[in-house]
Order: sequence, then C-alpha cells, then structure tokens
Amino acid sequence: MKQVNVGICGLGTVGSGTFNVLTRNLAQIQSRAGCAIHIQQVGARRDNPACDLSSTQVTRDIFDVVNNPDIDIVVELIGGTTVAKDIVLKAIENGKHVVTANKALIAEFGNEIFAKAKAKGVVVAYEAAVAGGIPIIKAMREGLAGNKIQWLAGIINGTGNFILTEMGDKKRSFDDVLKEAQQKGYAEADPTFDVEGIDAAHKLVILASLAFAMPLQYDNVFTEGISKVETKDIEVADKLGYRIKHIGIARLIGDAVELRVHPTLIPKKRLIANVNGVMNAVLVSGDAVGPTLYYGPGAGAEPTASSVIADIVDIVRHIHTGASSFIPALGFEDVADKPIISINDIETSYYLRLVVDDKPGVLSQLTTALSDVSIGLEAIHQEEPEDGELCAEIVLLTDKTVESNLLKALSKIESLGCVQGDVKKIRVETLG
Amino acid sequence: MKQVNVGICGLGTVGSGTFNVLTRNLAQIQSRAGCAIHIQQVGARRDNPACDLSSTQVTRDIFDVVNNPDIDIVVELIGGTTVAKDIVLKAIENGKHVVTANKALIAEFGNEIFAKAKAKGVVVAYEAAVAGGIPIIKAMREGLAGNKIQWLAGIINGTGNFILTEMGDKKRSFDDVLKEAQQKGYAEADPTFDVEGIDAAHKLVILASLAFAMPLQYDNVFTEGISKVETKDIEVADKLGYRIKHIGIARLIGDAVELRVHPTLIPKKRLIANVNGVMNAVLVSGDAVGPTLYYGPGAGAEPTASSVIADIVDIVRHIHTGASSFIPALGFEDVADKPIISINDIETSYYLRLVVDDKPGVLSQLTTALSDVSIGLEAIHQEEPEDGELCAEIVLLTDKTVESNLLKALSKIESLGCVQGDVKKIRVETLG
Repeated sequence: MKQVNVGICGLGTVGSGTFNVLTRNLAQIQSRAGCAIHIQQVGARRDNPACDLSSTQVTRDIFDVVNNPDIDIVVELIGGTTVAKDIVLKAIENGKHVVTANKALIAEFGNEIFAKAKAKGVVVAYEAAVAGGIPIIKAMREGLAGNKIQWLAGIINGTGNFILTEMGDKKRSFDDVLKEAQQKGYAEADPTFDVEGIDAAHKLVILASLAFAMPLQYDNVFTEGISKVETKDIEVADKLGYRIKHIGIARLIGDAVELRVHPTLIPKKRLIANVNGVMNAVLVSGDAVGPTLYYGPGAGAEPTASSVIADIVDIVRHIHTGASSFIPALGFEDVADKPIISINDIETSYYLRLVVDDKPGVLSQLTTALSDVSIGLEAIHQEEPEDGELCAEIVLLTDKTVESNLLKALSKIESLGCVQGDVKKIRVETLG
Repeated sequence: MKQVNVGICGLGTVGSGTFNVLTRNLAQIQSRAGCAIHIQQVGARRDNPACDLSSTQVTRDIFDVVNNPDIDIVVELIGGTTVAKDIVLKAIENGKHVVTANKALIAEFGNEIFAKAKAKGVVVAYEAAVAGGIPIIKAMREGLAGNKIQWLAGIINGTGNFILTEMGDKKRSFDDVLKEAQQKGYAEADPTFDVEGIDAAHKLVILASLAFAMPLQYDNVFTEGISKVETKDIEVADKLGYRIKHIGIARLIGDAVELRVHPTLIPKKRLIANVNGVMNAVLVSGDAVGPTLYYGPGAGAEPTASSVIADIVDIVRHIHTGASSFIPALGFEDVADKPIISINDIETSYYLRLVVDDKPGVLSQLTTALSDVSIGLEAIHQEEPEDGELCAEIVLLTDKTVESNLLKALSKIESLGCVQGDVKKIRVETLG
C-alpha cells in the first residue's frame, strides 16, 4: 500500500478537529481511500491541548509545512485571507494539493487560486468552506451533474439561524439572543460577518459558481442582515403561515443571475423553513431532479473536519489511481461570466409592516398606492388596536413585483399623512 | 476531446427520462465530464413516443447493446432480476462499465455482481437505485468518508409516504389512498412491494452496506408494512407530538447491525418527520459530522435520470483521466459480514393502542403488566368515551425496552379480562 502524506496548517477549532478525526478513524479512512494516509507535519503557532501531537512532527512556522518535500497534501485551516492566501499559493507553486475550509479565501480569491492550481496540475478542494459538514459541493458538482441547476436557496450561517430561531421560539429580542450566541462561541465578538450576511455571501457565491458555471463574483452579492428583524415580525409571519429565515438565494433568469442574502419569509410547509438552531441547509433545484435539500451542521470542529477529510480522501484516491486530471474546481471545464441582476430589478413578493392612524379610509389609501404601480395584494393582516390606541399596525403581503416598482409604492406610502414612520419591508419567497 | 459511448437498455419511464435529459443537457454534461458523450445505441422492445430516436441506433434485442464493441458504458434500466441480471453480468464479462437504477438487482445480487466487476476492472454504479434523484450513495461513500456512520433512517418509498401523508392530512383510509396512488401510477397494480416494505428493504440493505462496510444482506432485513396503520393512529400520534412514517433503519450496535423497515412514530420537530407526499429523505448520522439529511424526489423519470447521468459522468471522468482503479462499489477496499440483530433483540420505545372496558382499575392492571417486566411509561392518552359507551380507547407510549420483553408484556395484557381484542403496536424512534 502506498502512502500519502498530509500536512496540517493551523490547529484551532477545525485544525484540531481534523487532526483528531483523522487519527481516530484512520483505519476506516484508509480502507475508503485504498491507501495509507499519514499526518506528516502540523504547523501551528501553539499546540492545542485537544490534540495528542506526540507522534507528529510539529513546527511553529507554517511555511515549513508548505515547503516540506515529503508532504503531498497541504490542509489550510488558519482562516483569513492574508497568510492563508500566501500558504495556499506557495503550496500550489510547490506542486502540492490543497484542502481548505476557508470560504472567504475561496469566495474572494478563488478565481486566481483555481487558475494557478490548474496550471500546476494540482487540486484545491474546499468542501468544508460551505455549510460545514454537509457534502454540498460534491452533491452539486457531481451528484447533480446531469442537471441544469435553476436556483438554490440556503440557510448557510448557523449563528444567524440560531438567533432567528431563538427569537421566534422564545420571544426574545435580537440583541438578547446575539449576546447569548457570543457567549456560547457561535458568534464572533464582532458579529458583523454573521448577522450582516457577509459569511453567507461568501458561501453563496461559491454555490452560485458551482451551479451556473461562472467565475466567483463575491463583489456582486446583495446582502442585507438580520439585525432589523423584530420578534413582532416573526410572530406575524407565523400567523400568516411563514417563517423568517436568513437566506442566500442564487437564481438563473435567462442568462443572468440573482445573488442575494437577506431575511426572507418562507412558507412553513417548506422543509427548509423547519431548519432550526445552528443547523444549515441548502435547497437546490435542477431541471431534471427538481428540488433537493441537504441538511446538517454548518460549523463546529468535527462536522467541518468531516468535510476536510472527505476532500483528503478524494485527493488520495486520485493520487494512487494515477488519474491524469481532476474534476475542475467549479465542476465545469469552461466557466464564463454571467451578468448579475441588480437588486432593483429582482422580482419577488414583499411583507410590509407599518403603523397607521386608526381611521376609516386608511386601508384604501394604502391599496391605492400599491395598485397605482400595479402591485396586487396576497393578504392583509390587521390587529385590533388596544382600547384608546389611536394607531394600528397593518401587515401587507404583496404579489410579485420588481423591487424598483415596490420602492416607488413605498415612497408614496411613507409620504401619506396616515402612515407613521417607515415601512418595514421583508422579501417573501415561496421556494416551490 | 475523446468520446465515450453509452448504450441504454430499456426505454420505459427511467430509460426515456435518461435518454431525454442526456440529450437535452448534453453540452453542459460534456463540460462537466470533460469528454464527449454519445448515446451509441438504445435497446428496447418498443420505441417510446416520449423520445426522439431519429439519430440513435435502435435495437429490439437488448443483448445487442451489451455485445456492441463500440459501447463503453451499458445503462441497465429494464428492471427486475432475471434478464437485467443477465445483461449486467454479460456487460461486465464484455469489459463494459455498468450503470443501473435497479435496487432489487443490487440488493439481492450485488455481492456477486460487484465481485465480478472488480475482477474485470469495471464499475457497476447504482446511485439511482436508492432514493431516486437524491445523491445519497455519493454522499455516504465519498462525502462522509471521514466518518464512522453510526445509524441511518430513511423514508425511501415514495408511495408509502404518499399514502401515510394523505391519510393524515385528509383523514382518509389506507385502502382509499392506495387506490388513488394506483390510479396516479405511484403504486404498482400489485402494491405489495411498496406497502409491505420490500422496496424499502432493498434500498435499506444497500445503504447499510455503504454505512457499515459489510456485504449486502437482503435476506436479513425485518420488514413490516403500513397496511395496518389506521387514520386513528396518525391522529393520536399527532396529539402526542409525533408523525407516523414508514422508515428503514440501520444502526450499528457494538459490532452488530439492526436492519429494519416498519411504521415508526417520530417526533414532529425532527426534519424527517416533515417529509411529505412522494418525497424521500435519508438521515445519516456519523461520529464526526453528527446528523445530516438528504431530501428529494425518490422516483420519477427525470429525477431518477439525474442519478443515472451522475453515474455516467463519474465513469466518463474516470475513463478519460486514465485512472487505474475506481472507488470500491461499497466504498471500502474490504467489507466483512456483521451479525444482524434479530427484531426480538432490538431496543426501542412503543406506541400501544388498545380498547378496554371503561371501568375503574383498568389502567392499573395495564401499568402493572408493563412494570412486571420493567417497562416504564412515557405518556398515557385516553379519550373520554362517548356517553353510553362501555369501552374506552387507551394509548400508551412506553420507555425503551427490548422487543422480546415487550411481547411478554403484550401477551399478559391481551389476556386481561378488561382488554378487548388485540393491542396495536407501533415502534417509536426519536432519531435524535
């Protein structure tokens, strides 16, 4: 049996998880790979007490790993887009295959990295970069290879989903749950990446490129965070038959692509609307297969390690069977740019929540403002004001319309004398 | 660009779907495979009006396809285990790779077929044999390669799931819904395969072998059908927080394996409990990743074609990269028999529904019969009898116990003077 040597860069959460799972399940993993696998070296600034490194070469300089002539596969698990990028590029230059869990790196620099890897005849594998332990890259790139993918929608940030789930289940405020998520270690001290949709956008562009055979276009994702979702919205949505989820959506319209991350009302009966807590799920619709969904833990040491090791096994199999080439990084021999549709031109339905004077004729003014720009209504929800209250809260669910058109109606509505303050707007998707 | 030639045997539902999707999406599929793919020949007893065969060689003798020296990959889509088996074995003998959607063939004769394919250096791929369009074989064999799989549970028969869903949603009887399923073409004229769990058992043994590195053991699956589930059971289960699903379960206990298909109460909050209609889903739990779920259409022309084509693309990639060997059929270089646990020795919880005389002391007799064999109760549900009724219906949810122990208690309970008729028993799984 031949042997393939692995070098791990980084021994934080995912690094230690990878080291431990690979060590614990080695016999079975080797039986899957058909080849001996050896952790030749670990590069980390400090040891991790979770790992027994006694039989492994350890270096404090992670570039030692990349330059180690005995190493076949470099596993980059340090994160970020500075040193991580240098490591990955140097590994490629040195003719080594790379496995990474780094979504920011792939989303922002994947085009450059993949091109260099291809030129050098090595692989950069990144299953762990999207949706943690869910084998979604493999499903899209190989499992659905017969399909033209039409659209996909994912809950791809566990922290955001935990926050929305807790807000709904326990009627807690956004700020309150965010604080808990930070204490539990789900959310970073700076929670912007999670709650403002940046992390989800990184993952979404990767999925979109796999779906639509196009280069990664991180700069073109529309993102809207969940910090303005209120418990009230979740309650009303529930009454109307919907859940609110932070969803990344990529959809092919003709030859152009929608790329957007935002809070979204989804009908409760959809399976993805029932994905709760820190779990992730990606719904992918292909022209042949129809809708398919992939669900699992989107983060964590061992779930992420599961995907890292799946990539290692794939590469090991490739090496020892002497295959002359690999599956292209984005699944297609040729990728080509596609125009990204501006958020203003996206067509969807809307949930609108507004406070109005509790007087006759108000509803008619609202519906007129909408129908003036040909927007119909799917549902109206109004709660009886408390005794003595002079204002009422109204929720409208609109029919589908283009966003720029809705904005016209909103500016008219917000200028009505009977409307108090701004209108809260959340997009609605049926995902059917 | 090299060219790989495909021959399709069978032009029924899946055959025509495969022909049409492969033709429609050919350019994209070739960009994925990195190689030209040509449908060289179709073998079918008659043409299918759904397919334009004008530019394809057609034969009425399917063995022509298997013996055609130009063909690299034989796609077996005729079903059954007689001629289909001959075709597959002959294709292997002729040095051709095989793709099949035939679960019965793989479940019952897979060990023999895989051994012959390995000896000949060809692949037998069967993604479409389990859960239609869901890429579950790939997920388990490759995507979760880092894990020791602990257990899996699947809704892997769409007809059965359609029947149970309709019974629950519309309070219709089993017979009534079955008739509709037959009219809609979901269920065969002889529905035994679907409703008695034979089809699910075929799929379950395949999944279990992939999970636990063991040869296929179709003869050792315990199966119980859904024909005795009543609308009443679904209603009561709902009140107790459960759904009833026809589930195939494979679980590793020490070095032995549970293999069972039966109606099962599952907590409503589990995602798999919300998989409705003809859809399939497989929940797979690995030691590193934890629970993951794969959902999609379990049958139908194009969903099944999606999986058939994924297999074709995999093989084409292998051929044109010159790989010397393939991923082993069951995912492991070595598989070894594992003992299958008898249903009598399986530990689970139970839902028991029985009719008793509406008299004081009855409940105490029941709980005594259970506690005599150390079975505790999780919940008791009793509906008030109608005025003038002399009997009452009681539902008990037990704690976990071994089946043989439960049977002892049941025989005692059924002999009590206050119990009328037999006790209805359905197993309960938390799948947590």
